[in-house]
Amino acid sequence: MSDTEMRAGEVALPFDPAETTFAGVIRIGQLSTPWARGNCPKYLNQARDRGGVFQAHVDMPFRPALLGLEPGMTVVLLYWMGQARRDLLVQAPAHRSEPTGTFALRSPARPNPFAMAVVRLVAIDRESGVLELDAADAFDGTILLDIKPWLPSIDMPRHTEK
Amino acid sequence: MSDTEMRAGEVALPFDPAETTFAGVIRIGQLSTPWARGNCPKYLNQARDRGGVFQAHVDMPFRPALLGLEPGMTVVLLYWMGQARRDLLVQAPAHRSEPTGTFALRSPARPNPFAMAVVRLVAIDRESGVLELDAADAFDGTILLDIKPWLPSIDMPRHTEK
Repeated sequence: MSDTEMRAGEVALPFDPAETTFAGVIRIGQLSTPWARGNCPKYLNQARDRGGVFQAHVDMPFRPALLGLEPGMTVVLLYWMGQARRDLLVQAPAHRSEPTGTFALRSPARPNPFAMAVVRLVAIDRESGVLELDAADAFDGTILLDIKPWLPSIDMPRHTEK
Repeated sequence: MSDTEMRAGEVALPFDPAETTFAGVIRIGQLSTPWARGNCPKYLNQARDRGGVFQAHVDMPFRPALLGLEPGMTVVLLYWMGQARRDLLVQAPAHRSEPTGTFALRSPARPNPFAMAVVRLVAIDRESGVLELDAADAFDGTILLDIKPWLPSIDMPRHTEK
């Protein structure tokens, strides 16, 4: 845990969730970005506006799994925010007027520190495992966990009333 | 691993990825659905069309993290497809004419067996931790890992050219 300081209104778990894990995650690669602590955009569209070279590097054993991904496709990346604390339940980010529950925030601090980004594949080289992305909002070297095709038929909310 | 049979054209890792984990995931709750092996819809919109009672049950310690979620909001659920094998890199699903890489498929079989669903919150009871959802496409009892607000500004692909 990088930090245990609390702001007014914040609530933390009484235990360290990293001690109650039931299964493990593996690295499939990592992100290459211009960002480090101090200059990292908070949201993907800020990253897109600031520009730069954004890549996902897929580790050798997993490259066969890239078959079928093509430039122009939109994908969902899932990655691991390993520097974030996992025990915060209610957070008081500077941009919010009131403390807010972790599950209503996109903060990297969460019980399972997954981040999710919907990005466009600009180019892909399956040999070297390098995917050029239109944006990425995570630190350079962030561990990649999964790549999924983004499908409008299931990944857009339905507006019908139930 | 529930199954090690291979179809023609499929490719698997030469090792069991579950043995190379670098961090652990924790359970924040579970899904309650009408589905089990044999009757489970393959996609969220099939689940929505078939109907039923779809809920997420958030475990007691994590309920404070629900603060700020309201009925009508769209959320992203991340859950753990623990019965899926993790070593398949190229898969030959019945509905595809050609074997396809795992990262171009939404199959539950993947190195990190996360599934992701964009659903609407129909109702929420923070006391009991029960969230009513407009759909869910996973087995009853599936372990829930994360809930995130779905934000159109970042979760819709940009259509601008780079």
